[in-house]
Amino acid sequence: MPRVYFLPHEREIDVQEGSTLIRAALEAGVHINASCGGTGVCGKCRVLVEEGEVQGGINEKLGEADQAKGYRLACQATVVSDLKIRVPVESEMDAAVLNVQATPRRTAHIRQVDLQDFKEKGLFLPPVEKKYLQMTPPSAEDNASDVTRVVNALKLDHDEHQLEVGFYLIRKVADVLREQEFKATVTLARPVHEDGKTGIINIQAGDTAARNYAVAMDVGTTTIYGQILDLNSGEVQAEYGDFNAQMSYGEDVINRIVHAEKGNGLEELTTAVLKTINNVIRRIMKKAEVDPEDISTITLAGNTTMTQLLLKLNPRYIRRSPYVPACTLFPPIKAHELGIELGDHVLALVYPSISSYVGGDIVAGVMGSLMYRSEEIILYVDIGTNAEIVIGNKDWMACAACSAGPAFEGGGMKFGVRAEKGAIEDFSVDPVTLEPMNLTIGQKKPIGICGSGLITMVAVMFETGIIDNRGKFNQDLKTSRIREQDGIWEYVLAWAEETDIGRDVVLQEPDIDNLIRAKGAIYSGCLTLLSEIGLSIADLDRILVAGGFGSYVDLEKAMTIGLLPEMDPDKITYVGNGSLMGAKMSSLNNRIRRDVTEVTKKMTNFELSETNSYMDNYIGSLFLPHTNLDQFPRLEERLKQRKQQMKEIV
Amino acid sequence: MPRVYFLPHEREIDVQEGSTLIRAALEAGVHINASCGGTGVCGKCRVLVEEGEVQGGINEKLGEADQAKGYRLACQATVVSDLKIRVPVESEMDAAVLNVQATPRRTAHIRQVDLQDFKEKGLFLPPVEKKYLQMTPPSAEDNASDVTRVVNALKLDHDEHQLEVGFYLIRKVADVLREQEFKATVTLARPVHEDGKTGIINIQAGDTAARNYAVAMDVGTTTIYGQILDLNSGEVQAEYGDFNAQMSYGEDVINRIVHAEKGNGLEELTTAVLKTINNVIRRIMKKAEVDPEDISTITLAGNTTMTQLLLKLNPRYIRRSPYVPACTLFPPIKAHELGIELGDHVLALVYPSISSYVGGDIVAGVMGSLMYRSEEIILYVDIGTNAEIVIGNKDWMACAACSAGPAFEGGGMKFGVRAEKGAIEDFSVDPVTLEPMNLTIGQKKPIGICGSGLITMVAVMFETGIIDNRGKFNQDLKTSRIREQDGIWEYVLAWAEETDIGRDVVLQEPDIDNLIRAKGAIYSGCLTLLSEIGLSIADLDRILVAGGFGSYVDLEKAMTIGLLPEMDPDKITYVGNGSLMGAKMSSLNNRIRRDVTEVTKKMTNFELSETNSYMDNYIGSLFLPHTNLDQFPRLEERLKQRKQQMKEIV
Repeated sequence: MPRVYFLPHEREIDVQEGSTLIRAALEAGVHINASCGGTGVCGKCRVLVEEGEVQGGINEKLGEADQAKGYRLACQATVVSDLKIRVPVESEMDAAVLNVQATPRRTAHIRQVDLQDFKEKGLFLPPVEKKYLQMTPPSAEDNASDVTRVVNALKLDHDEHQLEVGFYLIRKVADVLREQEFKATVTLARPVHEDGKTGIINIQAGDTAARNYAVAMDVGTTTIYGQILDLNSGEVQAEYGDFNAQMSYGEDVINRIVHAEKGNGLEELTTAVLKTINNVIRRIMKKAEVDPEDISTITLAGNTTMTQLLLKLNPRYIRRSPYVPACTLFPPIKAHELGIELGDHVLALVYPSISSYVGGDIVAGVMGSLMYRSEEIILYVDIGTNAEIVIGNKDWMACAACSAGPAFEGGGMKFGVRAEKGAIEDFSVDPVTLEPMNLTIGQKKPIGICGSGLITMVAVMFETGIIDNRGKFNQDLKTSRIREQDGIWEYVLAWAEETDIGRDVVLQEPDIDNLIRAKGAIYSGCLTLLSEIGLSIADLDRILVAGGFGSYVDLEKAMTIGLLPEMDPDKITYVGNGSLMGAKMSSLNNRIRRDVTEVTKKMTNFELSETNSYMDNYIGSLFLPHTNLDQFPRLEERLKQRKQQMKEIV
Repeated sequence: MPRVYFLPHEREIDVQEGSTLIRAALEAGVHINASCGGTGVCGKCRVLVEEGEVQGGINEKLGEADQAKGYRLACQATVVSDLKIRVPVESEMDAAVLNVQATPRRTAHIRQVDLQDFKEKGLFLPPVEKKYLQMTPPSAEDNASDVTRVVNALKLDHDEHQLEVGFYLIRKVADVLREQEFKATVTLARPVHEDGKTGIINIQAGDTAARNYAVAMDVGTTTIYGQILDLNSGEVQAEYGDFNAQMSYGEDVINRIVHAEKGNGLEELTTAVLKTINNVIRRIMKKAEVDPEDISTITLAGNTTMTQLLLKLNPRYIRRSPYVPACTLFPPIKAHELGIELGDHVLALVYPSISSYVGGDIVAGVMGSLMYRSEEIILYVDIGTNAEIVIGNKDWMACAACSAGPAFEGGGMKFGVRAEKGAIEDFSVDPVTLEPMNLTIGQKKPIGICGSGLITMVAVMFETGIIDNRGKFNQDLKTSRIREQDGIWEYVLAWAEETDIGRDVVLQEPDIDNLIRAKGAIYSGCLTLLSEIGLSIADLDRILVAGGFGSYVDLEKAMTIGLLPEMDPDKITYVGNGSLMGAKMSSLNNRIRRDVTEVTKKMTNFELSETNSYMDNYIGSLFLPHTNLDQFPRLEERLKQRKQQMKEIV
């Protein structure tokens, strides 16, 4: 990885080749003004390349003389070698600020399965296996049935016992056996429980043992992700995500349930989600060039409502007190019986739920992250519109759900957008001039703010004193960017001409309020759950963060706003789409499918609304980061330092 | 039962009230001339009612004077009280014949399940049970899922454990529980194996425990019979049979297989049989006024080809050496997955086969008759176009199939008909005048001869010397009824004007040949099977006869022609439709479903065509009753007596 050294800040950072200079600066905690989101429009991010090579970074905003001297636009120039970069210091003020640098970005380690290690530990135990059989054709002396011949070959040549035969195989066996002179490959489905039977679920002519695949799927409220897994190697062969077609019936689970209660609504929602699931399956099969006959198992994980809608179970009582799901533990179901377009032999495993609001997506995360085998006490938090929290280890677990609202997904904000192109996803601010550095997804002109951008903005503004601990703007600051419009205070992130929407893109106090309520719901959920089980924040050994945007979130920022408990960032791991990970892991390790039943029994669900201390904790959490700053000693220290430094400047 | 005393024969017999006098005479072994089949047309069967009352028996064939004296037509008069009946003796010849009476009819005892006894022995163990549950509705303190609530109620209130939940129930549970305030009835499917799990397969609002039904079905090549069974009482609620719609694709299994091999043939045959099955189910549900929701299980039994066609398994290799079925042991399959129109929760049990030609119908007979629990050595023989033989007891069994041809079903005869109205089903002959007594089904004018009629005719003609032991007519007998037409010798059963078809109905030598070959195939099958296992006829303790026409067959006649081994008729039991009986019995006793797997392992199949002694045995069996008369000592004795008596008359 090339190393970029910033002057006069004297900060260096290793970055991926191809990163923009502006992102390198952001990650190093070096502020460079940039309000156009990285499109080269504002021309403010001029830097001097003193040593090394960059690619691009030249446009009409940069005079020819500057170009010749080696100046480049940091938002357009990408790193191709080790670099020494000087950020121009054009005023004393600028120079003073050098000592008040932003905290470097700290994103979480991303959890990835080390397949080699997984195999060495004997954990690579796919639920379906293939066996190639070479059988003697029938004769007058041995005219046993075709199925008997197959079963006997498995018993005698492969020491397989406790077998049961699937109907799909029975229908095919006569023709398949005679296609290649009684040489054929059978697919065995291993039992979930040790005393169960091995199912002989499919048969194919010839030797097809090298082609054995599984599908893992996350059935999300918004998006459905699918993976095709090679069960010989354990590798992901193809992956694809698509918006859940149910979106047209409402954005969140409550709206979906409301729709399900109308006339043909449930049927419509089931049909919609199946449409997307089948579309995703077709796409990944095509991408991976896998024959449907070679896919032998599918695992699906989703929240309780998504699961009930997929299985066509009336979700009406999920949203009504006392919030009762129809079913939490599902038997294996034929995929085609559910309407999933896979072979008739394919069994679908649907991840079990815990309660109406702690669903199979969370259980999948707990299983897939192997949290359920951990000695350490772990906080698993899945951040989204509905946030779920699990605390525990291999012996016990407590879980709860809290309604965070759409703030983390860019909802409920004046300029909130999903994490799409043009969304401001990263941000810093010059502590003196209060000028912004906006980074957008896809280096497009800003169109709005996405969830991770919002967290960073609020954290940065709080640390720099632009907003106070109630999320209110400091009205005394001298900048045209902070203003009151129609009685609402706001900060102008980008002026109309710098944006792609022809209007000023702003962050308003109500947007900040929404974020504070959202993070307050999650943090107070953690506190309540901890106190219910007689523990405190200090007892947590590790945090696992799941959720769609998690990997981009700056952990320090998340702790600054009080979304996550303060902890050594090295102890925080990002697991990404926990639901998909769990679906994948149980496709690679059949033992997870056995253990999951026990784990769900261990997981004690708390209904926060029924827990007395929750409201108190919630009110205390409606501050940045919290009324009780003792829980955030490192932030407290930083705030103190910052205050001192600012005093020195002024 | 009224008693009828015949004079001058001095024979008496107890008959069902409503029997015709002519049938009473036949059963008593009293010959009365009657060639019109019992329709009152020929007017030959005039008898005098000396004591008691009859109903009917008067028509224009009887003069007024005779009527006044008490004469009646025996074929039209029915028994309503004890009677003394005089058969007119109009010649010395007639009188002489009195000492040469026909052997009285001996039909087999019909096996019927004594439900009371069955229950007392603890054998009444239906595979599905209903349990009424009164549950506490959910609350904030207890908001477990609906399914969990049901499972807990079963565990705590009904001591039910090892439960697994069916998907059909999961889909309904939320709404059903709330219909009658969490009072509901679940249907439990008991495991086949002791270590298996009890499935909770259905749930209904309120208390429906009193309504619990099963369907038992015989899927025959020609006819499909269904029964609805009340699983609380064990009683048959309704029964219905219909021709298998596959008949339009060929009458026998070979023709069906040939059709299945053509283009869309298999699909067509499966569709056809399902059409009939579903029709039969609809009819019996309507007849019994049973709601489909209350039917929880179906058992089907059929021969190997019928089973494969029902399950849509390519039957091609059944009819080709070495005669390999696709599968003999079937897992439980969802009825709706097979295309059977029952609730989605219903599992279909399909009786296992042994080989390509010993099918599930035979296994069902072995199970349903409880032959598989017998200490005695039993010969089970199912007589039809394809005849199957099983010999054995609770410890061992040997089985074989032989192709008897269509003779027993009225096929392959010039005037052969199925057992329909107008078919001559019973027969006797005046040993001196050689005039016939024909009894038709439904007392209609003769249209032809059915299978049981043919057996009786050939036996009677052989005993009276009309035909010899090769089935050839005695051309020296003086009667216009025996004649040669176009080079073929025949006996005229009814003259054209007495029939319903306007032609003489005759029995020809080729018809007799066919019967001899058919019975020879079965008898030699028995001999071969016995010799293969080192036994002989004398080792048999009991015979069970199954098949569509069995109950009408006169056992003495069947032994006379050498269809059955000679044995005390009390040791021969008619089980009727063994396939249907087996399907019924496993609906009443779940243990049979467990035992059947073991039994199929015990049943050793012999391919007669591969057995050296079969051809020798077959050739020896192509005589009436057999070349070796030693095996038929009682017949030998009767033939001797008859010879002596005839000498006295002449």
